[in-house]
Amino acid sequence: MSVTKKIRAAVVGYGNIGKYALDALNAAEDFEIAGVVRRATNDQPAELAAYQVVDSIDKLDNVDVAILCSPTRAIKEIAQDILKKGINTVDSFDVHSQIVDLKNTLDPIAKTHKGVSIVAAGWDPGSDSIIRTLMLAMAPKGITYTNFGPGMSMGHSVAAKSIAGVSDALSITVPLGTGIHRRLVYIELEAGADFATVERRLKADDYFASDETHVKQVDSIDSLKDMGHGVHMTHKGVSGATQNQLFEYTMRINNPALTSQFLVSAARATMKLAAGAYTVIEVAPIHFLQGDRDQLISRLV
Amino acid sequence: MSVTKKIRAAVVGYGNIGKYALDALNAAEDFEIAGVVRRATNDQPAELAAYQVVDSIDKLDNVDVAILCSPTRAIKEIAQDILKKGINTVDSFDVHSQIVDLKNTLDPIAKTHKGVSIVAAGWDPGSDSIIRTLMLAMAPKGITYTNFGPGMSMGHSVAAKSIAGVSDALSITVPLGTGIHRRLVYIELEAGADFATVERRLKADDYFASDETHVKQVDSIDSLKDMGHGVHMTHKGVSGATQNQLFEYTMRINNPALTSQFLVSAARATMKLAAGAYTVIEVAPIHFLQGDRDQLISRLV
Repeated sequence: MSVTKKIRAAVVGYGNIGKYALDALNAAEDFEIAGVVRRATNDQPAELAAYQVVDSIDKLDNVDVAILCSPTRAIKEIAQDILKKGINTVDSFDVHSQIVDLKNTLDPIAKTHKGVSIVAAGWDPGSDSIIRTLMLAMAPKGITYTNFGPGMSMGHSVAAKSIAGVSDALSITVPLGTGIHRRLVYIELEAGADFATVERRLKADDYFASDETHVKQVDSIDSLKDMGHGVHMTHKGVSGATQNQLFEYTMRINNPALTSQFLVSAARATMKLAAGAYTVIEVAPIHFLQGDRDQLISRLV
Repeated sequence: MSVTKKIRAAVVGYGNIGKYALDALNAAEDFEIAGVVRRATNDQPAELAAYQVVDSIDKLDNVDVAILCSPTRAIKEIAQDILKKGINTVDSFDVHSQIVDLKNTLDPIAKTHKGVSIVAAGWDPGSDSIIRTLMLAMAPKGITYTNFGPGMSMGHSVAAKSIAGVSDALSITVPLGTGIHRRLVYIELEAGADFATVERRLKADDYFASDETHVKQVDSIDSLKDMGHGVHMTHKGVSGATQNQLFEYTMRINNPALTSQFLVSAARATMKLAAGAYTVIEVAPIHFLQGDRDQLISRLV
């Protein structure tokens, strides 16, 4: 009987992504949960009773990989800090234009400390990125459209909530096809705020200025929230000299559940790679999966 | 100005896949064509006038990678032979149950001769295999269905043609959903053959015995041939503890054009891997693409 050592993972940050990351870790036979790292360690929610909850990853033993579930803007600093401790990291950093910088910042640190970091390992950036890459490998010339939604955009909701006069907000992304999107923004107003003024401010914000944006005032944002989301990607292109090759990828998913599952799959992959930082398209897909290599190949290839 | 050395590729075998492989190589800026290897070197088709056509790869200079466009049953021997010359190979070997054996046969030879082989790099097995792997990484529990067609099955057409009494045949795969397929087999009869007898033989053949199979006699197979094909894959599964995550992948393509393009993308990848044999799910997707790594990441991730 062979006993394989389990991968010890820490969940760092405990919002939506952290909660679902615990689900994904619990469902994965090859992982064990070292603990949860969060700022507030008193007054824990009941579902964390079974776990060691600490305010610093230093207080957890033998962590192989940290699943960073903190906000995107905090990832760069946290990842550097944890990599320097010789612990692998994965994150779902989601600012597309800053991914190369994040990776190139973490890469030398990972190499120095013999660790592995996989960055931007949610679904877009993340699993969708692998589909986009594969579509180009199959038909190198042509246009790929990524159509999001309908579903709640976390980034746009946060942006809307930060507008002066808004107490809570929900931004729904509606796909209009060919990569064009409509934003439906539901807002609760702060007492005394003027809707027309708030609407004008919101439509002028960088997050919304270039899209068709509709703002609606509602009494309760909470009653509208649903974490379902989706994507529809299309690629029409040329294989060799042959035109009109057609590819489509569609998914309808619980957003944080997918993000967290893919983070856990990426955490597994960190255990199989040479030291350094990677984006998901730089990782062989088989590394995301648990199991014997030949059996996986027999089943999937 | 930087000059990057082009990858020198040989096309080995010149049927449909070989023809389209030349198209894909000609469309790829980072490749140059070392020549075409085929048994018959006299009486060449006009479109080969621009290429060196030889009966042995030894007669071509400085070949980096051989794109094996020979029938599946010949691949194992040809790949071993060429790897022993220190030349990388790619193939679209398509017997799913024998892929692990092929890979494990070629792996030590590739390592000894410091070469790389990527096996089963068409579309199924091939690009579809990567999609299946990714779907499991996103939702590890659940069922994936691969629905082929409608389109011409090369393997079933060859099997039908080999039935006694059949002079030519075309087998169309029709997807009935959930991985179940109907076979529509069009046949030309040899002079004097009895349709009912031939139909009975064909339906008893291993290729057809387990599927709903309809046989139709026609006057001309050639007038029915169309190399369009397609696939529709679905995965419904569980991410962490979250049920009902839905994924779909669809393509409508020219079959040999896609196979050959993916072979050429795999040929590029052989230049970036450590010595050994690989299936496509063991290759980082970025290796299939041409271009600067950071630029590809910026564009695709």
